[in-house]
Amino acid sequence: MFANTPEPPYYAVIFTSQRTAGDDGYADTAERMVALAVQQPGFLGVESARGTDGAGITVSYWASEDAIAAWRQHTEHSLAREQGRQHWYSQFSVRVAKVERAYGMCPQGARP
Amino acid sequence: MFANTPEPPYYAVIFTSQRTAGDDGYADTAERMVALAVQQPGFLGVESARGTDGAGITVSYWASEDAIAAWRQHTEHSLAREQGRQHWYSQFSVRVAKVERAYGMCPQGARP
Repeated sequence: MFANTPEPPYYAVIFTSQRTAGDDGYADTAERMVALAVQQPGFLGVESARGTDGAGITVSYWASEDAIAAWRQHTEHSLAREQGRQHWYSQFSVRVAKVERAYGMCPQGARP
Repeated sequence: MFANTPEPPYYAVIFTSQRTAGDDGYADTAERMVALAVQQPGFLGVESARGTDGAGITVSYWASEDAIAAWRQHTEHSLAREQGRQHWYSQFSVRVAKVERAYGMCPQGARP
């Protein structure tokens, strides 16, 4: 769950979404997108949570705006986003933000 | 769930956490903190999701770094954070980020 990101600055893409009912291929594609994202240059990590009401937040972390733009243009990711708009989400928002500082509390002295 | 934030730039505080077992006063305090946050100068909105595994993400949005600092120094919020560290969370991370752009898909033409 916790992304082991480097010292700031880096970028965060905050994706807030409301899922529609039913799976309709969502789970497989979501898993595939994470597997693909991990392979992209500049990918730093991802954190995700979704409640039983279908409201979810996924935050992915990236080294640069260029890395975000390249991932956005990835063909398979573009197709998945289109399916998301058409089938999987009734509403979503995307915010791109520059992380300026970070801290936390970890078990066993690991850093956030 | 969806925060009706203004045009960027503004700030996001990304709080990722793992809850311990049991409530132990958590739900009441969480509700109270949202009610208090809404009253703070510069508060723009909050979005939150937590899965059945206890992993959660809360993103609050603020007009400025000063607004974030003032909320952080609020006495009741400081006491709640201390209880969080001691009782409610086994791990958490906080990232403060400047939102540079935002877009989304809304039902009924509302904006993200």
